[in-house]
Amino acid sequence: MPNITYIDGKYLNYEDSKIHINDRGYHFGDAVYEVIVFNKNIFYDFDGHIQRLFKSLTSLEIKFSLSSSSLKIIINNLIRLNKANIGSVYIQVSRGVAERNHSFHGLNIKPILTIIVTKKSNIENNLNGVKAITLNDNRWSRPDIKTTQLLPNVLAKTLANKNNAYESIFIDDEGFVTEGSSSNIWVLNKENQLITRNLDGKILSGITRNSISLFAKKNNIAVIEKKFTQIELYNAKEVFLTSASSFIMPIVQIDDQNINQGLVGNISLELRKLYFNNFKHS
Amino acid sequence: MPNITYIDGKYLNYEDSKIHINDRGYHFGDAVYEVIVFNKNIFYDFDGHIQRLFKSLTSLEIKFSLSSSSLKIIINNLIRLNKANIGSVYIQVSRGVAERNHSFHGLNIKPILTIIVTKKSNIENNLNGVKAITLNDNRWSRPDIKTTQLLPNVLAKTLANKNNAYESIFIDDEGFVTEGSSSNIWVLNKENQLITRNLDGKILSGITRNSISLFAKKNNIAVIEKKFTQIELYNAKEVFLTSASSFIMPIVQIDDQNINQGLVGNISLELRKLYFNNFKHS
Repeated sequence: MPNITYIDGKYLNYEDSKIHINDRGYHFGDAVYEVIVFNKNIFYDFDGHIQRLFKSLTSLEIKFSLSSSSLKIIINNLIRLNKANIGSVYIQVSRGVAERNHSFHGLNIKPILTIIVTKKSNIENNLNGVKAITLNDNRWSRPDIKTTQLLPNVLAKTLANKNNAYESIFIDDEGFVTEGSSSNIWVLNKENQLITRNLDGKILSGITRNSISLFAKKNNIAVIEKKFTQIELYNAKEVFLTSASSFIMPIVQIDDQNINQGLVGNISLELRKLYFNNFKHS
Repeated sequence: MPNITYIDGKYLNYEDSKIHINDRGYHFGDAVYEVIVFNKNIFYDFDGHIQRLFKSLTSLEIKFSLSSSSLKIIINNLIRLNKANIGSVYIQVSRGVAERNHSFHGLNIKPILTIIVTKKSNIENNLNGVKAITLNDNRWSRPDIKTTQLLPNVLAKTLANKNNAYESIFIDDEGFVTEGSSSNIWVLNKENQLITRNLDGKILSGITRNSISLFAKKNNIAVIEKKFTQIELYNAKEVFLTSASSFIMPIVQIDDQNINQGLVGNISLELRKLYFNNFKHS
């Protein structure tokens, strides 16, 4: 459990970490968020996450006045106060507190920033590969904005866990993979093409996805951004997911289908190494 | 502003009305809610709303242990504490407080009940009819559950207000009307058929909708539950919305189209009278 949190200008003990009942984040999911992982002095993709946070705020017309450098100072303070060496930072900004009313037209309120630091013992876990299940993508039309409209994701992840799986993979109405409930999905096909869905508004522009793509290209691994089907997913040579918390996680079973005979693939491991090495050397 | 709220077993002053930062309602919109209007000793459709609340909780597997009679006692206490004669009660139940993790599989937490009473001066307003706009229904696949996944509704209502309109009406991909951002939609067509969309999972089973339907039938006004198109909406003789807060509200303009030459229709008014009279006499 985190010890000290940041809420709207104050550093608070965990039990006192409260937001007002009329926070629009609570009544409407009218809020955006980011998760950033840190390991000692390494922040994985800090700038990418902060930039996306501000992009999400703009998309929802949430007028947040804090600068990214001030935000960085607060985050670093909070990590220090928590004496956290390794862990993750959860950052949420809601539109603010107001008497409940769907419309925010003409509403002049101050956004509420909340930050939670969670300590972890080790982030580079052993990798045996995980299981995933597929299900119909039933989210609203803007999964490209990182909002707290996460109930479909919650239900999908819970269903995965009920089936002893790590992740749920959303399939759109036309049979194409969109993304995981909290990750982007990648396949290496039998022709050794590394494919992940293009940014067509139906997936989040994953920060880890973006970095992996960059590091892969730098190392002469071609990345193709295009839609791929559930069948292509089942028939892939390797499948992995990317997310801020899981980095690159190989998927070795999808529904009842083994991937790569249930073994972790080489390209998945190579890309994972590239990712970590890049931050170690930066 | 409400003075006293109810949060998880306690009656609190407005400024102390806070929920924990790790409430899953705040991070995921993992919560359900109801709004009930009261006028002196009249509760409009109290039982219907409470029944739907419990149905929503069951749909999301939220294990809420309070009985509906206990809930009614708390609501009445809160109204009395607020010295409220006329107003509305907002009831929300979130899955509870836990360290942030999408999945609730195996999670043993207590749901958090919060209630807010808002005083109103008069609920039976003068009726001049309102304007509505239409837009694409971009919500998740379960609008039939009354959850706090409301950001598309928030954006829709805000867009309506920006266009000097009262409500936004969602249109599905096939051109059929689903419902309003916080209401059900009804049309009286040129053949004097009163139509509202059937409960096909794409709309909420409105409590006011249900009562109006019942009262109409009792008074020999036939109600047809079926899908109708945006074109049928524009060409209707009368259009009105129903909701717990607005009861029956005539719509006299949709986008640039006047309905009934911009005048409030007789059937709308008659049904509104039927609705109020039913509760006065019950």
